[in-house]
Amino acid sequence: MTTPDWIAIDWGTTHLRAWAMTSSGTVLQTALSDRGMGALARDAFEDTLHDLVGGWGCTGPMIACGMVGSRQGWVEVPYATTPCPPLGDGLANAPSDRMDVRIISGLKQQHPADVMRGEETQIMGFLSLNPGWDGVICLPGTHTKWAHLSAGEVVSFQTCMTGEMFALLADRSVLRHSIGPGWDDKAFETGVSDAIAKPESLAARLFNLRANDLVNGQDPGSARARLSGLLIGAELAAARPYWLGQSVAVVGAGPLVKIYTAALSAQGVPVIQADGDRATLAGLTAAYRRMKGIS
Amino acid sequence: MTTPDWIAIDWGTTHLRAWAMTSSGTVLQTALSDRGMGALARDAFEDTLHDLVGGWGCTGPMIACGMVGSRQGWVEVPYATTPCPPLGDGLANAPSDRMDVRIISGLKQQHPADVMRGEETQIMGFLSLNPGWDGVICLPGTHTKWAHLSAGEVVSFQTCMTGEMFALLADRSVLRHSIGPGWDDKAFETGVSDAIAKPESLAARLFNLRANDLVNGQDPGSARARLSGLLIGAELAAARPYWLGQSVAVVGAGPLVKIYTAALSAQGVPVIQADGDRATLAGLTAAYRRMKGIS
Repeated sequence: MTTPDWIAIDWGTTHLRAWAMTSSGTVLQTALSDRGMGALARDAFEDTLHDLVGGWGCTGPMIACGMVGSRQGWVEVPYATTPCPPLGDGLANAPSDRMDVRIISGLKQQHPADVMRGEETQIMGFLSLNPGWDGVICLPGTHTKWAHLSAGEVVSFQTCMTGEMFALLADRSVLRHSIGPGWDDKAFETGVSDAIAKPESLAARLFNLRANDLVNGQDPGSARARLSGLLIGAELAAARPYWLGQSVAVVGAGPLVKIYTAALSAQGVPVIQADGDRATLAGLTAAYRRMKGIS
Repeated sequence: MTTPDWIAIDWGTTHLRAWAMTSSGTVLQTALSDRGMGALARDAFEDTLHDLVGGWGCTGPMIACGMVGSRQGWVEVPYATTPCPPLGDGLANAPSDRMDVRIISGLKQQHPADVMRGEETQIMGFLSLNPGWDGVICLPGTHTKWAHLSAGEVVSFQTCMTGEMFALLADRSVLRHSIGPGWDDKAFETGVSDAIAKPESLAARLFNLRANDLVNGQDPGSARARLSGLLIGAELAAARPYWLGQSVAVVGAGPLVKIYTAALSAQGVPVIQADGDRATLAGLTAAYRRMKGIS
């Protein structure tokens, strides 16, 4: 294969992905590994990356985003402080004699305290694919991020642990006995609207998913959809200042984008959808181009 | 020792407790085991109980409450339906040739669906210790129960999974990295009042406990107290119809009773405290006396 000019790297808690790139932005090859930050000691990052992409023969820069830059990562890269552009403080070098690896700094917000690592690159990518876009970006996931963008800057952002809460409640709490495979759009929608209409009732509605099985034999797939709806509804209640009267871009993949879009649309919010992987690569490409002085 | 006239048994998910009793209510001996319902197959209950209390030589009845009567227990005892007295449908026999074991039925509520097993006995016990008491009983725990009592009946009740949520978030979520031993009364109080004042913001406040550590180096004990305060505050918001303008009896043990009392008192609610074990034994005793026709 053609020798890549640079390599784009997305290195999160549970995965490592790399793209062999030309300077003009063509993808020559991709590689995927399950050796995420969470599975690696600090001295294992260099070998792990070399094992994955060393064979590509790239002598140019490798640009990485994600938890690889966290305290538990390869090297801790300080956060840039909002309000600032998504690639706020540029790139920090990872310690390596064999490879030229630069890591994108995450973002932090002082009040209320919040942090992100990796999503700033997706935000940058979305902006580079949609120049001049002002509004709100929602990045659903384990920790969903809401970011308010204006004039190319992240003005503020907010994290909700909705994905992690869903996994804990559905797989590890007493609700697991009453939740099963399957889905029910109507149960999801009702969960969202119940939670938005009366967010103060959430604490009482969760155990109801267990009791409704014991008392009324509720369907396990409906229970799963309703739990998702209640938690996303509670998130929308908490994120109301982010979406009320705004245009929202939901950036991500698969069913999560679909259900967040459904939940927002039900509130009358105009939503556009964008692919999360494409945004990540576009953000890493933007960081490369900025480093090279390519405007 | 004197041969007991009967045996009182509290058999929950994680524990088994027995009291050797005289007919007049004197406790002759007690025994405790970690062989709760959750650890036992259906055919193991009889031997487990016999191992624990067989040596007491009791030929009288053994009266049990708790998850021993659930679908996963010794025998499934149907729920009594509210509104009804706490010992709604009396006692069901457990299958045994060696012992005379009677299990107290739990309670269910049809709308909104809810269930309890074990707490009905504590409620009965509290009523027998406080004859004529009308008001609300709060039984804090893994699954906190709120019950509205009037004229000796459970009129309605509501379960909140607050204890289980706290354990999942503090021990198994990303927040575990920012939560440690220790406590801070002020952080607890602020958490309660923040959650009650704006219950719709809860979803955004949880991850804030992680970010406040990364950004501001928040104390891990304060984070623990604030998490507890946020979750109990969310519970109070959901249980408002139960405590607003009511007298509340908090029935339980240890620090949980203390913090629920503090949270309720901060809302101006008059609270009395009662010991949970004492209530359980009083409830089992009331069931025995009713069976024997002792008024």
